[in-house]
Amino acid sequence: MTDVIDVAADHPFGLSALPYGSFSVGGGPRRVGVRFGGYVLDVAALADRLRWAHADLFAGPVLNPFMAAGPDAWATVRADLRGWLAADPDPDLFTPLADVALHLPVEVADYVDFYASEQHATNAGRIFRPSGEALLPNWKHLPVGYHGRAGTVVVSGTDVTRPVGQFRDPEVTFGPSRRLDFEAEVGFVVGVPTAMGDRVAVADFERHVFGVVLVNDWSARDIQAWETVPLGPLLGKSFATSMSAWVLPLAALDHARVAPPARDVPVLPYLAGDDRAGLDIAIEVTIGGHVVSRPPFATMYWTAAQQLAHLTVNGASLRTGDLFASGTVSGPDRDQWGSLLELSWNGRDPVTLADGATRTFLADGDEVVMTATAPGPGGVPIALGEVRGTVRPAQV
Amino acid sequence: MTDVIDVAADHPFGLSALPYGSFSVGGGPRRVGVRFGGYVLDVAALADRLRWAHADLFAGPVLNPFMAAGPDAWATVRADLRGWLAADPDPDLFTPLADVALHLPVEVADYVDFYASEQHATNAGRIFRPSGEALLPNWKHLPVGYHGRAGTVVVSGTDVTRPVGQFRDPEVTFGPSRRLDFEAEVGFVVGVPTAMGDRVAVADFERHVFGVVLVNDWSARDIQAWETVPLGPLLGKSFATSMSAWVLPLAALDHARVAPPARDVPVLPYLAGDDRAGLDIAIEVTIGGHVVSRPPFATMYWTAAQQLAHLTVNGASLRTGDLFASGTVSGPDRDQWGSLLELSWNGRDPVTLADGATRTFLADGDEVVMTATAPGPGGVPIALGEVRGTVRPAQV
Repeated sequence: MTDVIDVAADHPFGLSALPYGSFSVGGGPRRVGVRFGGYVLDVAALADRLRWAHADLFAGPVLNPFMAAGPDAWATVRADLRGWLAADPDPDLFTPLADVALHLPVEVADYVDFYASEQHATNAGRIFRPSGEALLPNWKHLPVGYHGRAGTVVVSGTDVTRPVGQFRDPEVTFGPSRRLDFEAEVGFVVGVPTAMGDRVAVADFERHVFGVVLVNDWSARDIQAWETVPLGPLLGKSFATSMSAWVLPLAALDHARVAPPARDVPVLPYLAGDDRAGLDIAIEVTIGGHVVSRPPFATMYWTAAQQLAHLTVNGASLRTGDLFASGTVSGPDRDQWGSLLELSWNGRDPVTLADGATRTFLADGDEVVMTATAPGPGGVPIALGEVRGTVRPAQV
Repeated sequence: MTDVIDVAADHPFGLSALPYGSFSVGGGPRRVGVRFGGYVLDVAALADRLRWAHADLFAGPVLNPFMAAGPDAWATVRADLRGWLAADPDPDLFTPLADVALHLPVEVADYVDFYASEQHATNAGRIFRPSGEALLPNWKHLPVGYHGRAGTVVVSGTDVTRPVGQFRDPEVTFGPSRRLDFEAEVGFVVGVPTAMGDRVAVADFERHVFGVVLVNDWSARDIQAWETVPLGPLLGKSFATSMSAWVLPLAALDHARVAPPARDVPVLPYLAGDDRAGLDIAIEVTIGGHVVSRPPFATMYWTAAQQLAHLTVNGASLRTGDLFASGTVSGPDRDQWGSLLELSWNGRDPVTLADGATRTFLADGDEVVMTATAPGPGGVPIALGEVRGTVRPAQV
């Protein structure tokens, strides 16, 4: 509790952001909260006090019931929150951020990871297929992606243990991964489900997607390289995927909408019409506090609206809590590449950190932090929640 | 209700099988049931009546609470059921199978599909890489697999709509899949979860896996072929995966244990020690009532115990309801291949059905049924629950 809630008008977590999360205080129950400046607002308590029609949506520990309620409920609650916060909010309903524990805000249903950055796919192609075309033939026709492990999506702040597995170096070897990497990504969380057979048109994206998170798709490059043919990654990714504790509602990103890059291969009609579906989110990645990359999400070739249309074009249903991530965000410049695989060119070119230490891949003890901002109203940037994780030594 | 419960001693769903499922009668609530002969026993009602210590595990609509309770609870309940059924069971607690609706018995957490048949992987390699080695270099070192879509796992009896998508034929095309296929598989359902960082040793398989189902991993070969590089299948599989309504407890398969095939490449220690982890399950696949294949599960190169050890060796956690399937079961003989891809050699050799009709891939209206039996005590075979589905025309 605090005496007065004082959040500057240009605070990146001010009235224009208002992301939702799941918090607890002193080992108490998990509750839905909203971040406002350096505080967490207890939404369930506010909803009870104000006798909101939607109060029951906040009774549980995660956002899923609220996310399932749909765009009208999302808009009503956001307007009510902004009105109440802009007045003289009762400090009793807030806890300083430093005094709360943050939990996974969403019960994740299915998790899909895309591969939507042309620069990242080109870099990966050049590294792994140096004698072939950098982009594979399907890449500009459809947003390539795969299902990841929903059960190992963890909240920002969770330590990540270096995975053990088999790989070639050059003989078949078993042990801790020697090429542990991060991937800077933006994730989208589905609120409104669909039935099997339904397709979500590009134009209906906002009727189904509730909000946006940052994602670190931790990757063990050596394990992944050995297992990946012909069915794709499994253990090289499934040990952990970190997501931010705060889900920023799509509505907060109205000022961040941009046109995606020009498509030089025409897309099929079900993937067309997303002319304003890009998002100008500027990501920053640090290792041990040193900035190693600034990936620009606005450069992504495939938009989230196209990804959702693609995911459902075959009739696959959506569930509340489905999470789909963009794939590694890499911009055209070298200091915009979103993984150590690219930054170190698969280990060839070590990356120098501030203290003179170098990395080709992650070392035990490295803390990787991703933060991001986007344009808000009046030229004031808003922030996405960070995603933070420290590498712990392998358990052998 | 019925007057007397009369199940022959050699009934394939007799006292030695006793699979669990989820049923409802006349639009009533979903309840946990056990199949006994041609009847469904209301387990929750029995548990209440007999004041079982485990009665609360059967209060919900799915098996998850019971599965999470672990091997001691599974054994106690099975022994209690067998004792009660062998006496003079009260007909009031049974409903004829024809009068119930069957539902998905498990709330599926994550779904992983393996690729564990050497014959199937060899056939696929010969079809798709005719000039290369049939088996890829990793195949005998680790059980290759990938995550599928848990949200589109459906219960036997659910119609499957032909998916729409993009593929090359030979130009990039959009429309209903022209190469819709089945895959005959055996699935394993996890009961007891693990924490992140835990590994499940081969020897601990039965401490975590509750039971066995049949799976039809419907596949749109044309969609899959186009999307699959470099991250594996997505829309070619995600439209539907059918599983049997009945989960056969592992304990029922004690008499079906066999040695897996000899491994001609030594496995790493974490994959060793499964000398009796093979299962002699004989599958039969029909299209429109005509047998098209009899895949022998005993021939699978990688056992389910190895698959679970592999899935968790990197520290990935398990959740109650995790489903992992074997991949297509194909035996060495041509009439033992578990997909039309193989049976028709990717469309080259049409398969003849009983009425003289032929198929290269599935036609609208085709009903695919998979059944299976395994050795039981006293030489009396027991049955697994069937998995049945009819192909409906695409929605365009």
